[in-house]
Amino acid sequence: MLTVHQRIQPFIHRTPVLTCQTLDRMAGASLFFKCENFQKMGAFKMRGAANAILQLTEEQRQRGVATHSSGNFAQAMALAAQMLGIPAYIVMPSNSPEVKKAAVRGYGGEIIECEPTLQAREDTLAKVVERTGATFIHPFNDGNVIMGQGTAALELLQDIDNLDIIIAPVGGGGLVAGTALAALQFSPRTSVWAGEPMGANDAWQSKQAGQIVPQTNPQTIADGLRTSLGDKTWPIIRDHVKRIVLVEEEEIRDSMHLLMERMKIVVEPSGAVALAAILKEKKAVADKRVGIILSGGNVDLKTLGSFFG
Amino acid sequence: MLTVHQRIQPFIHRTPVLTCQTLDRMAGASLFFKCENFQKMGAFKMRGAANAILQLTEEQRQRGVATHSSGNFAQAMALAAQMLGIPAYIVMPSNSPEVKKAAVRGYGGEIIECEPTLQAREDTLAKVVERTGATFIHPFNDGNVIMGQGTAALELLQDIDNLDIIIAPVGGGGLVAGTALAALQFSPRTSVWAGEPMGANDAWQSKQAGQIVPQTNPQTIADGLRTSLGDKTWPIIRDHVKRIVLVEEEEIRDSMHLLMERMKIVVEPSGAVALAAILKEKKAVADKRVGIILSGGNVDLKTLGSFFG
Repeated sequence: MLTVHQRIQPFIHRTPVLTCQTLDRMAGASLFFKCENFQKMGAFKMRGAANAILQLTEEQRQRGVATHSSGNFAQAMALAAQMLGIPAYIVMPSNSPEVKKAAVRGYGGEIIECEPTLQAREDTLAKVVERTGATFIHPFNDGNVIMGQGTAALELLQDIDNLDIIIAPVGGGGLVAGTALAALQFSPRTSVWAGEPMGANDAWQSKQAGQIVPQTNPQTIADGLRTSLGDKTWPIIRDHVKRIVLVEEEEIRDSMHLLMERMKIVVEPSGAVALAAILKEKKAVADKRVGIILSGGNVDLKTLGSFFG
Repeated sequence: MLTVHQRIQPFIHRTPVLTCQTLDRMAGASLFFKCENFQKMGAFKMRGAANAILQLTEEQRQRGVATHSSGNFAQAMALAAQMLGIPAYIVMPSNSPEVKKAAVRGYGGEIIECEPTLQAREDTLAKVVERTGATFIHPFNDGNVIMGQGTAALELLQDIDNLDIIIAPVGGGGLVAGTALAALQFSPRTSVWAGEPMGANDAWQSKQAGQIVPQTNPQTIADGLRTSLGDKTWPIIRDHVKRIVLVEEEEIRDSMHLLMERMKIVVEPSGAVALAAILKEKKAVADKRVGIILSGGNVDLKTLGSFFG
């Protein structure tokens, strides 16, 4: 993973680790916030996207990359491709918010719209790949993407000694799987936890069942966490993520509010899930040193009012 | 000022300096943001309050400190006093927002309410001082407070080489006067500028007139900048602040929005004034290296909706 970290240097910021006495008091623990909301394009996804693109041959790069995503990975892929001067084809559902499409276009990505169904998305992607010869890169179910995402935890472990726990949100599982691999390699004594919304709890269900349980009808404001685990992220999560903490929507909102009010930082709902989980598990984290990965900060500011009333 | 900086170490955070490529592009300059919104209690005022309190004799400290403020200085004085275990008496107008009173109480300050007039404030303060023997510390018109505030620029100059300009907002003038003294001592080639709301432009008027022009009926969302200059801040500003840039209310709002959207940080209206000034003066700052002091982040989140519509 050190090689991965080295490779993606020109594509990422080394994000700061912030602390907050008030939140420490509230949690009864020492919290270290890894601020991936300050990452390029506003989320950790830039790490995995850059690493995956950089593994391509020169010939593959010339033909470009393709992915399907309506969220941060679409922007990350577009920006990483732009930085290398190669094309990025992004399949997005036609009902994606205009602000997200504009962000992808702003980073030079070419958007191909499709009907908002899984089938249409896959068909459209296949056609794009056939037409352009671009290489498909999955938003999370990809070894290079997972390793790239793990570099956030790697930096955190380099900056902060003796962490008892690192917690990250879980959606498709790329971030928390990468985090688990980083901890395994660089700090085996550190437990890796995940935070997950109650209304999109497929990772928690999968852990209970001992096999992947797909997400059905996810209901959460944490739009980055509505996806199902993949067959590459699941085994890592099954074996190396110690605990999945479920949180309510109101707890996610409260954590976003706390991060803005007390730490003066903007975090998207998905990014606030890990803090919500820690504040819910006060007994288990008492007096521990806890790393919290704030995964991103891309929230439509017009909607903030609706979060906070 | 190095001695001052040393003295207040236990009371302050060394705040990070952040950068943002998008804002650099917008300004056509290299911007370095000194994040005093991450300072203890959320604003640079902690620096001056701590320095002033630490100059008191042991006997003076035992009797406590008193000030009049409805803003960040009230909180800073209360917190600095709490950290030393001494009393802080804060005179606040009875119509101060409840959230501000709660913040002062939260830091252990004792609030004494008065009618919302200058006369009532001064009378009430005099009575408090007479009753308690506390030492009055002015929120900005005080040499020790000015020197303390200057340590934000000192840190910025230590962290970033070759700044052409440093800009800070101007209200009573403590921050920008301290900034000017820091630049004089540590980087004489750096020009110090101030940003000021058009609707509270007493510093700009004072510069034009060559003498203090008091603030009358200030109209601005930048609540920290509604005060008049003092006789200790004015001469420093007159002689060492090169330029005062006036900004409109809408420009302040736009800058707050940009800081949240692009940098993912929460800055109060007063704190966004310096960025607004730089974005207004693109010709004068072209290709320059500009330090921007984001003075604080204490904004009532319930009001954000009203700023951004």
